[in-house]
Amino acid sequence: VAELYALLAGGDLSEARVLLHRMRPHEVAAELGHLPGADQAMAFRLLDKSHALATFEALDAPLQRDLLDHLREDHVLELVEALDPDDRARLFDEVPAGVVQRLVRGLSPAERAHTDALLGYPPGSVGRVMSPELVAVPEDVDCARALELVRLGGREAETVYLVPVVAPGRILVGVVSLRSLVLAEATTPVAEVMREPLSVTAETGREPAARLVQEADLIALPVVDREGRLLGVFTVDDAMEVLEAEETEDAARAGGTEPLRRPYLSSSITRVVRSRLVWLLVLVLAATLTVQVLGAFEDDLEQVVSLALFIPLLIGTGGNVGAQASTTVVRAMAVGEVGLRDLGRVVGREALTGLLLGGTLAVVGFVPAALFVGRDIALVLSLTVLGICTLAAASGAVMPLLARRVGVDPAVVSAPFITTLVDASGLILYFVVARAVLPDL
Amino acid sequence: VAELYALLAGGDLSEARVLLHRMRPHEVAAELGHLPGADQAMAFRLLDKSHALATFEALDAPLQRDLLDHLREDHVLELVEALDPDDRARLFDEVPAGVVQRLVRGLSPAERAHTDALLGYPPGSVGRVMSPELVAVPEDVDCARALELVRLGGREAETVYLVPVVAPGRILVGVVSLRSLVLAEATTPVAEVMREPLSVTAETGREPAARLVQEADLIALPVVDREGRLLGVFTVDDAMEVLEAEETEDAARAGGTEPLRRPYLSSSITRVVRSRLVWLLVLVLAATLTVQVLGAFEDDLEQVVSLALFIPLLIGTGGNVGAQASTTVVRAMAVGEVGLRDLGRVVGREALTGLLLGGTLAVVGFVPAALFVGRDIALVLSLTVLGICTLAAASGAVMPLLARRVGVDPAVVSAPFITTLVDASGLILYFVVARAVLPDL
Repeated sequence: VAELYALLAGGDLSEARVLLHRMRPHEVAAELGHLPGADQAMAFRLLDKSHALATFEALDAPLQRDLLDHLREDHVLELVEALDPDDRARLFDEVPAGVVQRLVRGLSPAERAHTDALLGYPPGSVGRVMSPELVAVPEDVDCARALELVRLGGREAETVYLVPVVAPGRILVGVVSLRSLVLAEATTPVAEVMREPLSVTAETGREPAARLVQEADLIALPVVDREGRLLGVFTVDDAMEVLEAEETEDAARAGGTEPLRRPYLSSSITRVVRSRLVWLLVLVLAATLTVQVLGAFEDDLEQVVSLALFIPLLIGTGGNVGAQASTTVVRAMAVGEVGLRDLGRVVGREALTGLLLGGTLAVVGFVPAALFVGRDIALVLSLTVLGICTLAAASGAVMPLLARRVGVDPAVVSAPFITTLVDASGLILYFVVARAVLPDL
Repeated sequence: VAELYALLAGGDLSEARVLLHRMRPHEVAAELGHLPGADQAMAFRLLDKSHALATFEALDAPLQRDLLDHLREDHVLELVEALDPDDRARLFDEVPAGVVQRLVRGLSPAERAHTDALLGYPPGSVGRVMSPELVAVPEDVDCARALELVRLGGREAETVYLVPVVAPGRILVGVVSLRSLVLAEATTPVAEVMREPLSVTAETGREPAARLVQEADLIALPVVDREGRLLGVFTVDDAMEVLEAEETEDAARAGGTEPLRRPYLSSSITRVVRSRLVWLLVLVLAATLTVQVLGAFEDDLEQVVSLALFIPLLIGTGGNVGAQASTTVVRAMAVGEVGLRDLGRVVGREALTGLLLGGTLAVVGFVPAALFVGRDIALVLSLTVLGICTLAAASGAVMPLLARRVGVDPAVVSAPFITTLVDASGLILYFVVARAVLPDL
């Protein structure tokens, strides 16, 4: 990259072209993600036609969109026409509606029909990302004939490794792998080698569909309408892409930012700041609660200033325990191990975990604290830590589950969020315990 | 699940058996993840033979290990013999060495040879998780003959969708997809339809290999030795499994815990507490630094108690900005967008981002703070927030990159870690600024 970057910056385009042509499309795509926006288009224009198309297909949709902004109109139309229908639908989710209309008008009738069909499904559904270009076989043929049909129709299909088997009216009745077709005797009826199909409806979310592909180790998953008619297939490479995007989104939210949706180094600083600022403002606003709580106990602080010394330690520990709990629960929800129905069990487990963690800290920390600040304050600290840890772990478990209940992405209820919430309640607990234990408050 | 759980708890095994037999293997595997350890084995024993084997294959290795602990010896041997060699190697990573030896002795000679080969590669390498059971074709045959060879050798192979093409000495010279073989004319030489292979050596880490499968949209990736001889193939379903395990590990570390490596609800509380306690103790120990810092400035606190009111707000904000930066950088590193070579650019970008975020907060917050606590303290707060945000974002970017430099998983340098580090330095900054600005300190 450093090399490509230097060549482009130095205007040495012929050297850059040689370098680019030695790379595979997915490598070029990764390099583009390292370059600032303007250089991306310059590098892309150096590719020859087929290399350019393959590279374009390997890019994430937001980067495709950035590139289109920098290319000539005829070049744009050519690229968009050559994309697979599912890749095109994904790209169209990124560009403004006016541009989509113009691009759709430029498509050939066949490609336009495919695109219109996919764009009819709700955003985020598997219908948007499935491929309508497939080859299916009727249930009453033998394997030789089925292979023949795959041969005839397979060139345009997104995958031929999973062949849906359909009854009249395109009703999905089975699936047969290309492997079974190839390994079977020519005269075996397809009905004998086909398996009962796992399938999803087009309205299914793309993430659950992708998890199903992953968990059942599928090469492709047939997509049907509510009457069970075959509409398309969702392939394992698209499933991997969906899951990567979801993981990136969850990881971003776990850190209290919106996902960038572009490779980090090719995102402008403005975009990075914007992805974080709103979260940060919300968290700061929530944190002003801690100022109010401390304001309410300001007299106690004046009496025993040394109480202030332990504020960062106590609320930091509460925040860490809360982060541990929420991270664990959010991840377990993301991979489908935990759902709303488990609310009771999860909260019980986390409260107990928090109690055990807080208890350990309270016991381990008491003697050193007593030596350092005296027995009374050490007792306040131990009791507070026990309470804060239990409270933090339980909140860390409840919040993500409640978020899903009200239709919010559980990943939004992230560590920073829990930390800030636990801070204020932890402080109240601290001073309540202090008043109960210390004789001079 | 609730249903299965109730049936098992109530001892109604025949109903439970009926319920289990209506489910697919990957569904049974998911259900087992919801059950406590002892119930898992009970449910598993209710499955008939082929269903049990398929379910066992769908389980993660740590859960397989738990199950084996509860099954009879002959049942164990039967299951282990029936596993694919790569699944078996993965399971053997989980069980104690003595058990591995006993299990290997029980294998048939052919399976034992496969297993010994895989166990020879370093843990964490793609050699451990590849499949040695494959079908390859010589480069000098035509497509009809190649298909014939796939038919003859394909039954045992892990995948036949990607067929490696080899020269004498099993040197990998190309790959051809089953799709190309099926679609090509029978008399076309394989050499004409094969492509140049992407491949990795057996010592390659499993995560980079899995990312390559994902990025290049591969069905399978050939694995070779250092001389380019074909050893096995790494398939897309195994790649998805590797990536899911890595994502789960990164997610856990991002929250300051060790990964559980088992489904959450089937992990015992002891295991959950252990996965968190060491991290928590380290973080608490680090946090005692804040107590020392505040102790050093105790006189200042006694002079102006209201300075204490803003401690949680300031260090919380610093922690949040640090978490945002480190989460973004750790994720960008995980998906290969950012590496050590980008250190300078990344740190520069993050410092600037922190400055902009801190600057915004400083400007937005000054007037309300001035109204609430007076102009002097408001100035202290604004200056401190500016400094803390810059410092936090830069540290959040540097630490994960440095961690990789010294060979530590960047995900370990997580939000909780950064937060704790930033706390102490943020407090020093706060009091230094306060002394400079406030007349009475």
